[in-house]
Amino acid sequence: MPINVLFAAHEKRWAQYEAPLRTALDEIGVAYTLATDLPPAEVDYIVYAPNSPVQDFTPYTRLKAVLNLWAGVEDAVGNPTLKVPYARMVDDQGLTQGMVEWVTGHTLRHHLGMDAHIVNPDHKWLPDAPPVASDRPVGILGLGELGSACGQTIARLGFPVSGWARSQKQIDGITCHTGTDGLHAVLRQSQILILLLPSTPATENTLNAETLAMLPKGAFIINPGRGPLIDDDALLAALDSGHIAHATLDVFRVEPLPQDHPFWAHPRVTVTPHIASETRAPSASRAIAENIRRGEAGEPFLHLVDRDAGY
Amino acid sequence: MPINVLFAAHEKRWAQYEAPLRTALDEIGVAYTLATDLPPAEVDYIVYAPNSPVQDFTPYTRLKAVLNLWAGVEDAVGNPTLKVPYARMVDDQGLTQGMVEWVTGHTLRHHLGMDAHIVNPDHKWLPDAPPVASDRPVGILGLGELGSACGQTIARLGFPVSGWARSQKQIDGITCHTGTDGLHAVLRQSQILILLLPSTPATENTLNAETLAMLPKGAFIINPGRGPLIDDDALLAALDSGHIAHATLDVFRVEPLPQDHPFWAHPRVTVTPHIASETRAPSASRAIAENIRRGEAGEPFLHLVDRDAGY
Repeated sequence: MPINVLFAAHEKRWAQYEAPLRTALDEIGVAYTLATDLPPAEVDYIVYAPNSPVQDFTPYTRLKAVLNLWAGVEDAVGNPTLKVPYARMVDDQGLTQGMVEWVTGHTLRHHLGMDAHIVNPDHKWLPDAPPVASDRPVGILGLGELGSACGQTIARLGFPVSGWARSQKQIDGITCHTGTDGLHAVLRQSQILILLLPSTPATENTLNAETLAMLPKGAFIINPGRGPLIDDDALLAALDSGHIAHATLDVFRVEPLPQDHPFWAHPRVTVTPHIASETRAPSASRAIAENIRRGEAGEPFLHLVDRDAGY
Repeated sequence: MPINVLFAAHEKRWAQYEAPLRTALDEIGVAYTLATDLPPAEVDYIVYAPNSPVQDFTPYTRLKAVLNLWAGVEDAVGNPTLKVPYARMVDDQGLTQGMVEWVTGHTLRHHLGMDAHIVNPDHKWLPDAPPVASDRPVGILGLGELGSACGQTIARLGFPVSGWARSQKQIDGITCHTGTDGLHAVLRQSQILILLLPSTPATENTLNAETLAMLPKGAFIINPGRGPLIDDDALLAALDSGHIAHATLDVFRVEPLPQDHPFWAHPRVTVTPHIASETRAPSASRAIAENIRRGEAGEPFLHLVDRDAGY
């Protein structure tokens, strides 16, 4: 008998997820019906957004599990009618891999000076090749899982990579620094600087007027970390003076970035809408399908929410 | 006694090479004078562009070697006054590494949909993340030194990479195809297609109306190979219909690309000025300094021109 999978989320998500979910469910080889509307008593699994209309799970009498579409479960974990196994989304592939791709792509974009070719209204043919990667030092502030993965990928492309973290690290391919002197050493040599620090009181305004001035003239800044790492006004001043060539920013103190924020219109700023690291429909769909496969095979579900801990 | 190094090339090259040459000469630890004007009888080495004013080498009585600034030596190899060792430029680092960086950068650019953020006049905040690399098949036509180096780097970033060459290849990380059926198989699955075939009568118009139609709708084309690989009119038609999302082209049938060529103004074409693979001043300077070091140490020069063969 085919299993019935209810997709309970905003219809925008359905547009995004229907095809990849079908692909992923086809791959596990279980006969299924996948729909946004099914008689509750016949539903086996719910693919679930906590903000969906489904808030009372009582009519879902044969439900085997609820599979969350994203990592945050705080809006559903306390629901007293949700008594079956409840799994949160862990999409390492989308989160870490996506960050590595975004950071590597924008590093190469600035390194290669792509923008001058992408926007070239005067049709200028200027065959000035950039330096090779080995002549372009890159710095990374923050060497956690994301920072070290990005740094190692960039180092493998040939860039000299130095990094800074609060504690001393040992990471293949990255010259690791710590302490205030170490931070200044990384800043002084980084033609491209990537921010992947966590947001804490100690990291707020890590890039300010003083530290921006330590970067080499013409440096590029890439921030996929957290908005408060940068003093926005100091960055704008450094961009206006030409000391900083360009800033590519994925995160902001307020998101979406307000339309009147000067970053939007600044010719030396690229805004990306917090997409560097995000759950991706295809890999998230595979994670959901794997849990359904496990349920049908009698194997334990992955990433079950601990209701006592709340996540 | 310091050695005297004459830089004999266009003044634009001097602007480009002076600093990297000094850096490279400093590194070999030989005392030197580097200048664009020196008494001929005191010159030890000439860093040389065959189109420079220096055409009669007779007055350079203590000359130890002539070190060419680029690979082509055809304009100087027959000069009867050039009797000292004459080395051509071999800048593998610039040529292969530069190509890998350019191809990888533009692959990530199209994969990540960067252009929509780089040019975003309406300040749209649209947080649609792209698929991860593992869901973005890339194809490479041509698996010589450059094609295989690019393909392996892209595969290491997580993209599934298939490749095609005239003869069957075995390359780690690349699914290799050959023959007409193999070509069609690569085309049908490549969301991003990279052209690195040589220019021969057999490869002319490899991308034509028929083969462009085999690519998935919305595919991206990247051509750092040779201009004649593409039927320009067929590509323009496929771009206009939307079947091909974008083409990033570094090479053309006529270079510089004529100002009236429709590629310049087409919103779905990016023109780069034949920079994907080029000698780079820093790495070329290191190659020149290494030959000077060898000359001073009594070691054989690298990459000497064979005057009988003419290259």
